[in-house]
This record gives sequence, C-alpha cells and structure tokens, in this order.
Amino acid sequence: MWFEGSSVRMIDQRLLPHEFRIFEALDVEDIAYAIEDMIIRGAPSIGAAAAFGLALAKINGRDLSEAAQLLKKTRPTARDLFYAIGVVGERIEKGEDAVAAARSYADDVVARCQAIGKHGARLVKPGARILTHCSTGGLATVDYGTAFACIRLAQEKGRNVFVYISETRPRLQGARLTAWECKQEGVEHVVIADSAAGWLMNQGMVDAVMVGADRIAKNGDVANKIGTYTKAVIAKENGIPFYVAAPTSTFDHDLATGRDLPIEERSAEEVLNIGSVRIAPEGSRALNPAFDVTPAKYVTAFVTEKGVIKPKDIRTLR
Amino acid sequence: MWFEGSSVRMIDQRLLPHEFRIFEALDVEDIAYAIEDMIIRGAPSIGAAAAFGLALAKINGRDLSEAAQLLKKTRPTARDLFYAIGVVGERIEKGEDAVAAARSYADDVVARCQAIGKHGARLVKPGARILTHCSTGGLATVDYGTAFACIRLAQEKGRNVFVYISETRPRLQGARLTAWECKQEGVEHVVIADSAAGWLMNQGMVDAVMVGADRIAKNGDVANKIGTYTKAVIAKENGIPFYVAAPTSTFDHDLATGRDLPIEERSAEEVLNIGSVRIAPEGSRALNPAFDVTPAKYVTAFVTEKGVIKPKDIRTLR
Repeated sequence: MWFEGSSVRMIDQRLLPHEFRIFEALDVEDIAYAIEDMIIRGAPSIGAAAAFGLALAKINGRDLSEAAQLLKKTRPTARDLFYAIGVVGERIEKGEDAVAAARSYADDVVARCQAIGKHGARLVKPGARILTHCSTGGLATVDYGTAFACIRLAQEKGRNVFVYISETRPRLQGARLTAWECKQEGVEHVVIADSAAGWLMNQGMVDAVMVGADRIAKNGDVANKIGTYTKAVIAKENGIPFYVAAPTSTFDHDLATGRDLPIEERSAEEVLNIGSVRIAPEGSRALNPAFDVTPAKYVTAFVTEKGVIKPKDIRTLR
Repeated sequence: MWFEGSSVRMIDQRLLPHEFRIFEALDVEDIAYAIEDMIIRGAPSIGAAAAFGLALAKINGRDLSEAAQLLKKTRPTARDLFYAIGVVGERIEKGEDAVAAARSYADDVVARCQAIGKHGARLVKPGARILTHCSTGGLATVDYGTAFACIRLAQEKGRNVFVYISETRPRLQGARLTAWECKQEGVEHVVIADSAAGWLMNQGMVDAVMVGADRIAKNGDVANKIGTYTKAVIAKENGIPFYVAAPTSTFDHDLATGRDLPIEERSAEEVLNIGSVRIAPEGSRALNPAFDVTPAKYVTAFVTEKGVIKPKDIRTLR
C-alpha cells in the first residue's frame, strides 16, 4: 500500500492468486469500499488503510471527522482500524503533514511486524510443522505479517518450516493468500480443508498452531477469523501450543472480556457461492459470522513486538 | 437406486442441487466408477450400490469374486461396502436370484433407516436446533437417512426442527445435498462454513449434534466425514450431546479401536479446486483425508435400528 501522486495504491486481494491487479483509491470513500469489500484485509493492513484514507480526506479538503466516521463503519471487529484512526487523526489535527503521518503509521506497522517475527521465530523449531488459519502475511499487515512473520523469519534462518494452511472458508484467504505468500517466500506448505485441521492435530502431525488476531480483550480473549476458536480448543485437547501473534495495537484495554466483542456478520452470499459458482440450492439461507472469540484459557502465549507474553501478563503492555 | 430392465439407475449426486440427472450403470465397472467418483455416496448407499453391482455382474455372466474384488477397491473406509458384498455375495452364491437379493438388501437398508429415524426422533425436542455435517439423508442411505432420518421424523411429528448444515468441504455434501434434502422435506435450515460450527456451539445456538458414520469400531470409535472429530470435541467442551446415527451394518466387530481404521486419502484436486474453479496458486499442494476418527469418549450415544445405545454397550449389538 503506497501513495502515488494524490492516490493510494494497493494489491487487490480479492483477485489473488490468479490475478495481480492494483486498486487505486482517489478518496476516502474508495478506501472505505476497499476495506468493506476486502480488497485489503487483515487487521494491521486495515488500520494502515484507514490511516491512508484519512490522509486522502485531508488532501481532498474533506471533513476529517466525517471521514473517520465513514471508515469506522466499514468493519467492526478489527481493533487496529479504530486505533489507527485515533492515532493518525490526532496527528493530522495537530498539524502534521497528513501523508507523512499515514506513511509513518504504516512504517510503524511494518517495524512492529518485523519485531513480532523476530520474537516468534524463536518458537519455531527446526523442521517444525505449523498449522495456520486465514492470511497473516505481508498482505494482511503492509509487510512481514504477524503469525506468518514468525514462520518467514524462522525459514530465513534455515529451519525448514512446513506449513498446513487451513483454506479459510468462506473467503479462502488461506488457500488463496497464505499459499501465495508461502510460494513467494519458498516455504513448503499444503492446503487443507478447514475441517481437516483438527484431525491432523489429533494425529500428531502438527507441532504448533500460529494465528493472528483482530482484537484482543484485557483478559486475553481473542477475536480472529471464524474457525480460530475451534482450532484453539482442539490444540489444547491434543497438547499442542497455540500462539496468537499481533501488534500491541490489537489489544483493546477498554474491553474486559471477549463477551462484548463486536462480531461482524457478513453477507450470506459468501457462503452460498464460491466465486461466481452457486453451491447451495436456490432459496437456502446461510449464516456467516466473520470472526469468533477464543477464550484466553486456550492461548499458550501472545507474540507481540514487545516479546512473547502469557495471557495473564497483558496488563504489562499498557 | 433401482433396477430398470438390466441396468441400475441412480441420482448423480455430483450434480445436485443444480442438476437432477440419472446415472445408468450397465455393469459392475459402472457401479465401481459411481462409488469411486461419488456419483453415489454415504455408507449405506455405497453398500446398496455394491449389492446392485454384484447383481449386474451375475446378470452379465461375470465372475462374482472378481466383481467383489473390484467393488472392494473403490473406497476403503465405509464398513457397509464390505458388509453388503459379504451378505449379498453369499446369497447369490447360494442360488438366490441376484436382482432379488440386491433389492432385498436395499429394502432392508431403508427399513433400518426408518427404525433409526423412529428411535432418534425421540432425541429431537420441539424447536431443537440440530447441527449436522456431510449428508445423511435419503441420498446417502437409499431412503430416509441416518442422522437426517431422526430430523425428518421429528419434523413430521411437528417439532419445528432447525438445522445448521456444515457445508462439508471439500465436496460440499452439506451445502449441496443436505440443504437440498431439507428443502424437499420442508425443514428450516441455514448453511454455514465448516469453521463456524464450533463458534455456534460455543454461543449456545446448538442443542445437539447429529452425524452419520462410515465405520464404527468395537470400542465405539467412529470413522466419519472429515470434520466430525472436531465437532465432537467442541460439542463435549460445550456440554452439547453428540449423536452418531448408523445401522448396525456400520459396526465393525473385528476392529478393536479406531486406530487401525483405514482412512481414505482422496485427490488433492478436490481441495485445490471448487468445481471447475482453481482456488489455490498453481504449484501449491493439498492434503485431503476424506474421513477422521472420533474417539468413543466424545460420543453421547449411537442411534441404531435396534435403539439408542451408549458406546460401552456396542457388544450387545453382535
């Protein structure tokens, strides 16, 4: 995601891995659309996109608080969205150059992800078989990634990591994006149906589970892509460590537990169709919660840019 | 599935719910192909198809034991396949009319399923919200179904059942077939991504899980469609009853535990593509175990044609 003249450019993640196309946002509405329609996704990337959206609004002489409202309505679950709007909005209001403020926010995200990768790579033993869900690489985080940064940096150290990619229905971010990122980084991997993850864990084929997060409550409850909760329970049942990698901007210190966490419900069409192919009978309905909440008791540790911490130590991050 | 002249006809389940087409099998090879390619699927239907395959072999003057070998090689996990070949093969060898023997086997399957439905409907309370996986209705069992028979008969008693259908990647038997059967029977339902099942259970939205089985070991371990194990663990974690409905022909009294159960590995292409649409990058591989094994400790009860029994009482079925 970058500025080019007075527009913001980003990879259209809806079309990967088959087509590499750049989406151009000319104003804050285009950024809001890009977030809502998942041209860009992943909590840290959503935050950075919102920062760029505010900068576009400023350049175009728009009302900043209206722009902030518009962006906040796109997707309710990712904490980074609200964090970025707060931080970057304040810097622009204080007179900082809007584009510079957005760029510096995005650079900061990348630096945090690099640090997450450095800390998390220590958890990835030589030959480790890591199960992951959804997409947590550079596409989701401007660069490097969260869970994927740990894998990528371990791989760069020559640890021969093997990744099981849960395909992540309905939008298939695992099969489409994580597989694409594994190929880019030369990480050996297989794609699996989401339903197969539990069985592979039970069969002793998985050494650790690593996922990202969209929002983390004070008590350590984690909102992340639907299917995360299931993987966490099965990991615990089988004695497999379950790591959540996220920058500290994902921690919501105003939220006591995951019980009050806003879970986005997306269109039924995402489940009833795959791409342009209808799978269910006409007239059948679907339920499509985009996220779930994993209680803290299933989380072995959080990997943040400040280090690896236990759920009980979250307050030290404030 | 029925005889018409000297051929066997069956609904091509690969094409549902979009197209209703009848597949015609002229000889045992066509039946073997139909089972292997999943034109017909579901353990009891696979058993009946094998019976019809032996009858076709007999009509066409083929060697019966070669026909049996061919059929046994199609799919390794479903116990009913081997059971049907044993029972019907013996009856034909003893001089019984081959077509009559196959028909009587299929009629027997239907009668067992009706009885399963009768016993299982008692477990479905008025307004019950049942989570199911894969397809367990008439398509999977010649008629009525196993888990679906319990739902269907409870619905016929006016119990307003609501069904969550786990879509069942990779072949989408839930979204395609169970949704279609729910529509046929007027059962209210929603389709969900497989990953959403755990979260709905955790949110108190599911009263019971009901699934079928492909093979059940002496100790009560259950082989069923990949994803069943995960649902069973999550059900137990959330205090939700987990029922496995299957005719006694699915119980393998020669198999001590699920550890030695043959798990079919199907083509990676089923995961890497959805219908004709490629989802993963070119060059990415996939792992595609078609079944998993749920340890008996997660099973609340089995619903058989002989009644509802606990895992510890399986030996009484012999």
